[in-house]
Amino acid sequence: MKLRPIKLDSTGLRFKTRVGAVVLEILDQRYLPEEEKWVAVDDSALMCQLIKTLAVRGAPLIGVAAALALVVEERRIAMDTDSVDIKKVEKLKRAAAELRAARPTAVNLMWAMDRMLVALSESRSLLDEAIAIFNEDVEMCDQMGDNGAPLIRTGDGVLTICNTGGLATVGIGTAFAVLLRAHERGIKFHVYACETRPLLQGARLTTWELARHGIPHTLITDSMAATLMRQGKIQSVFTGADRVAANGDYANKIGTYSLAVLAKHHDIPFYPVAPMSTVDPDCASGEKIEIEQRAPGEVRGFVGARETYRWAPKSSEVFNPSFDVTPANLVTKFVLNRGLFSVEEFRSTIKRGQ
Amino acid sequence: MKLRPIKLDSTGLRFKTRVGAVVLEILDQRYLPEEEKWVAVDDSALMCQLIKTLAVRGAPLIGVAAALALVVEERRIAMDTDSVDIKKVEKLKRAAAELRAARPTAVNLMWAMDRMLVALSESRSLLDEAIAIFNEDVEMCDQMGDNGAPLIRTGDGVLTICNTGGLATVGIGTAFAVLLRAHERGIKFHVYACETRPLLQGARLTTWELARHGIPHTLITDSMAATLMRQGKIQSVFTGADRVAANGDYANKIGTYSLAVLAKHHDIPFYPVAPMSTVDPDCASGEKIEIEQRAPGEVRGFVGARETYRWAPKSSEVFNPSFDVTPANLVTKFVLNRGLFSVEEFRSTIKRGQ
Repeated sequence: MKLRPIKLDSTGLRFKTRVGAVVLEILDQRYLPEEEKWVAVDDSALMCQLIKTLAVRGAPLIGVAAALALVVEERRIAMDTDSVDIKKVEKLKRAAAELRAARPTAVNLMWAMDRMLVALSESRSLLDEAIAIFNEDVEMCDQMGDNGAPLIRTGDGVLTICNTGGLATVGIGTAFAVLLRAHERGIKFHVYACETRPLLQGARLTTWELARHGIPHTLITDSMAATLMRQGKIQSVFTGADRVAANGDYANKIGTYSLAVLAKHHDIPFYPVAPMSTVDPDCASGEKIEIEQRAPGEVRGFVGARETYRWAPKSSEVFNPSFDVTPANLVTKFVLNRGLFSVEEFRSTIKRGQ
Repeated sequence: MKLRPIKLDSTGLRFKTRVGAVVLEILDQRYLPEEEKWVAVDDSALMCQLIKTLAVRGAPLIGVAAALALVVEERRIAMDTDSVDIKKVEKLKRAAAELRAARPTAVNLMWAMDRMLVALSESRSLLDEAIAIFNEDVEMCDQMGDNGAPLIRTGDGVLTICNTGGLATVGIGTAFAVLLRAHERGIKFHVYACETRPLLQGARLTTWELARHGIPHTLITDSMAATLMRQGKIQSVFTGADRVAANGDYANKIGTYSLAVLAKHHDIPFYPVAPMSTVDPDCASGEKIEIEQRAPGEVRGFVGARETYRWAPKSSEVFNPSFDVTPANLVTKFVLNRGLFSVEEFRSTIKRGQ
């Protein structure tokens, strides 16, 4: 198998081909912002570990990373002279199943594995399919950024939560793409980043990305958003979305719903930003979205890459949902890769099955 | 000087007299919940350090602790055979000034030092004055608890923020007193404690106090309160207050205003709990309350007794107000030591100068 020269680069992932080999590297996000530690991925089992431990995170990024891990795995099997073709397909199917199981709630991961398995069954190039998935993500990010950027004006304070940038996608992000595009167009605005307890993706990752791009920003605890709103310092709120139901209710990082209520009270526009692939037309409303409870240790303290710190009593009972659901009536407009949609426009588009 | 036998005990402070000496011990709250480390206070300089480093915190507790530290200081000076009476008074005045400067924003500390200095100038017993301050705080806490307890019913979920219990006062607390009294009366309810970023008084101290009293509770991050409200799990919110303005606006731990807005949106009653000494009739409204900004390291990570942990980039700009202001129109009723007051009742009482 001769490989044509390919190079795919994103904030959290690097992929290239070189004579007879493919090289996939993943930025271990657990060490950010202190250290940019890149991990070479030689087989799909390692990628499973990286996904499970949240070294790689962000639904779109996970999907692309898993697809490329299958390309790595295919190459590894090809180098193994003992492998015959029939065994190769079985091995790849097993690897895809393991990758899928590494993060069962990530819709993009399922969807990426499905596409790779179809390519495999049709004897199409896995590399080409993974590249297509990569490029589509980049394009959707650009579109979200372009669609949302005009919503930000010079002088604005813009609030965001969690991490939705280049570390969550292979493009420029979802909500973060809007901030970046506005910044690139010369709009002078200030970002307020919620730290996003318990896992602190805002404090650790969003601040890092904002600094890299030179976007002026201030880190706050989640409890400070309301005060900034009352002081007139916030003109808009942009969040990502993990799953959007057919009626426009949407699940996102815990804390999003709180911001939506606070924005409503202060009459501040509130925008979820997502690609169409995040919309689940089979899910009628937010009540149907199941919310995963995570480990209590995350709330009793801080779970970091190198150390875990506990400040609450060991015996404390903990509530730790990873997501909350924001009802559609708190949404000002959806910023999708296909454009800006009011809740009504969104609902009728989904109804028409578009 | 012969000392009559005195023993004063609270959750965070112990004081007793014994043959010819006074013994004051302070629970170093920075080590909670892991360790109950008691510090013997031999002079007022050490108490200044304990106050400055937040080893002892909670406005009413600080006031009493500083008053008792002056008693310790008086005893120390009396043991010093070189001291003449005129020097003794000057030394005590200087000690009081230093204690006052240890936490300039704590109204109770100023008020306690004023009382002690009056006693000194009138040649009354400092010990008696400190005991009076102690006993008054205990009584006001009991009254707040008794007044608020009927607001909690069996089956309720009750939300609270920061620490307002025996560690913040020398009695049973302010908002915490309400929870404790309801619990003692056999009401079966569940407390949800906000962790209270950045200093985590909820996660570290309130959970510890709730567990000591056997009150069923769950620890949450501040960003989870909204979701619990939407799920119908919260029937009332009780908070402390650091300063209440004449119109009923009040300053309290950052995050309180956020809970007030969320409670309003979900139609949940919202109760600040405070002694009359927290009301500042000379402060017309919340806009007049100055809010102190604290060190950025607290938001960039976690500042603990034994270690400091940073997870955000060193260069991140930070917003870190210690308090926020909740406008009176979000208050359902004030729970004061003198009874329950609607906002209108509160305003007319203050106007009448009562």
